[in-house]
Amino acid sequence: MNRVYNFSAGPSTLPVEVLETARSEMLNWRGSGMSVMEMSHRSKWYDDIIKKAEADLRELMNIPSNYKVLFLQGGAWTQFAMVPMNLMKKGKADYVNTGSWSKKAISEARKYGKVNVVASSESAGFTYIPELNPDTFSRDADYFYITTNNTIYGTRYTKLPETGSVPLVADMSSNILSEVYDVTKFGLIFAGAQKNMGPAGVAVVIIREDLITDVQPEVPTMLQYKVHAENSSLFNTPPCYSIYICGLVFEWLKKLGGVSEMQKINEEKAAILYDFLDNSKMFKGTVRKEDRSLMNVPFVTGNKELDAQFIKEAAENGLVNLKGHRSVGGMRASIYNAMPIEGVKKLVEFMKEFEAKNRV
Amino acid sequence: MNRVYNFSAGPSTLPVEVLETARSEMLNWRGSGMSVMEMSHRSKWYDDIIKKAEADLRELMNIPSNYKVLFLQGGAWTQFAMVPMNLMKKGKADYVNTGSWSKKAISEARKYGKVNVVASSESAGFTYIPELNPDTFSRDADYFYITTNNTIYGTRYTKLPETGSVPLVADMSSNILSEVYDVTKFGLIFAGAQKNMGPAGVAVVIIREDLITDVQPEVPTMLQYKVHAENSSLFNTPPCYSIYICGLVFEWLKKLGGVSEMQKINEEKAAILYDFLDNSKMFKGTVRKEDRSLMNVPFVTGNKELDAQFIKEAAENGLVNLKGHRSVGGMRASIYNAMPIEGVKKLVEFMKEFEAKNRV
Repeated sequence: MNRVYNFSAGPSTLPVEVLETARSEMLNWRGSGMSVMEMSHRSKWYDDIIKKAEADLRELMNIPSNYKVLFLQGGAWTQFAMVPMNLMKKGKADYVNTGSWSKKAISEARKYGKVNVVASSESAGFTYIPELNPDTFSRDADYFYITTNNTIYGTRYTKLPETGSVPLVADMSSNILSEVYDVTKFGLIFAGAQKNMGPAGVAVVIIREDLITDVQPEVPTMLQYKVHAENSSLFNTPPCYSIYICGLVFEWLKKLGGVSEMQKINEEKAAILYDFLDNSKMFKGTVRKEDRSLMNVPFVTGNKELDAQFIKEAAENGLVNLKGHRSVGGMRASIYNAMPIEGVKKLVEFMKEFEAKNRV
Repeated sequence: MNRVYNFSAGPSTLPVEVLETARSEMLNWRGSGMSVMEMSHRSKWYDDIIKKAEADLRELMNIPSNYKVLFLQGGAWTQFAMVPMNLMKKGKADYVNTGSWSKKAISEARKYGKVNVVASSESAGFTYIPELNPDTFSRDADYFYITTNNTIYGTRYTKLPETGSVPLVADMSSNILSEVYDVTKFGLIFAGAQKNMGPAGVAVVIIREDLITDVQPEVPTMLQYKVHAENSSLFNTPPCYSIYICGLVFEWLKKLGGVSEMQKINEEKAAILYDFLDNSKMFKGTVRKEDRSLMNVPFVTGNKELDAQFIKEAAENGLVNLKGHRSVGGMRASIYNAMPIEGVKKLVEFMKEFEAKNRV
């Protein structure tokens, strides 16, 4: 059986070239006589791997030297706690509620300080990104928190809030490296790897140095940014193999021309799908046009049985994991960086055929 | 270049069969059309993988049904915080200080309550396991904490402390699955995977159900055992690929005859090395005989230049990572489950030759 087109929201498809390299290096990494999984994290070899991964990510995102790049465990969920535990010095932060993940971040932050929800699109089922009025922002907040792309609902910010001297913190889990961001606009960016970077089990944190400070001693050592920053992500044994795979993905992305090239391809991929949705009589996008994600494309037929039939038949045709999140229903095509344009074209082709066959 | 014999203390050598399976399944796991790295953690396939890993571990360790098995991120270091944050209800625990890792666990626990160090071998450089006198144990402790095997110093407990109704908590990172333990003697066992189970990035926690309780809300959600137990390790995206590799290691160990068979092999491997050390005029073990580890064997020549020469020449002969931990010096051979007996024999052969060539 051949490889499928995997539209999973995460963990998600990886570039075939990356998997092929990982396969060829599995028993013997570049003459070392061992797998990367077997390497001491203190070895010269592994040091090269993690340093190169960091350097490539810095190059790809144009990360200035006054930012640290950390590879941590525990995913975005651990960041939901680490951000307030490390950054809430005055005990107050602004959050925008644009979906499930924002809500989780908000409820976790409330354990550690006052959270001001400046805007929310919850009452409309998170189908858009709310307008943000800087007059409603707290001037004395420790930080201002957004989720740049909302995996479940398929929305994304097309412009960043102007937060002045208040550091902007972003959960970029589902669209990091998919479009060009100016890192200097952020105080902290974090992202779980399992969508656009590599396997689950590692999260990247990009943090401006002035935000790395001593914290209350009750904060677990492993949840202190300072500890990891001072030890270049080698305070404890890092998730070595996952970082290695991320490094291969970064190399792949560089070869492809970097993030600006990737963005063009992503815009092209998304346009193919959205254009079809806008013209289909059967399938409809669920999100306000201006806020559409380049990564996650939810759509429905309006008929649950038809949705189920579509998902089933698509899978039979090698187009898998198209079921929407249980909170939205319908379908969702996650078309991250590693989804080739051919996959999107095949999906649209199949949707056309399905529509023709099932016309009422 | 061929594979080397890798004596690294962790991450460490894995069974070749496991790496070969991982390699063959890299691009297409059993007809799924995708790598395990690309699979949704909510998929039927991944559910089979994680459930089988758990079932096999339960079988291997004979884990009773009133214990939960959790696959968590953050390694042993995160457990150093999770154990006191979740278990210190009365605010007091007994710890035995048998090395670097115990010390770290102690200092982390002190953030959350009173720690009573009932015994320590620190003044003797941790070269033995101290005698334990139950009269010195706190009757009202929330738990009693030990490190069953001390990776850096090469010591291990050969009998467990009698803690009565106080739950015994063990960091078993460096000898889990290497010898038979009676799980019912413990309240909680944890172990980072990267020595005897799989790649870095996942830790196994085996916890008696009555110890899984609600905790203070300030404990980060990700650090609450209850959250992970209630969600069968799928509260958030787990380190999927690392768990898959652990599963392959568990299968390998079952095929080999399970832990009791593995223990016999480990005893045989260790005996080969210790017998040589006891008879060598050049190399000496550094640990009290009764407390010698089956997993980590530190030794010295007594001459730093000779140590360095040995380590260098051994590496040139495909016997790598024999350098001792910086706090002990000399050499250390970590001979975990996956180190074949041939590797140990080759090492001893090489030590004999080296001794003959460098006789004073």
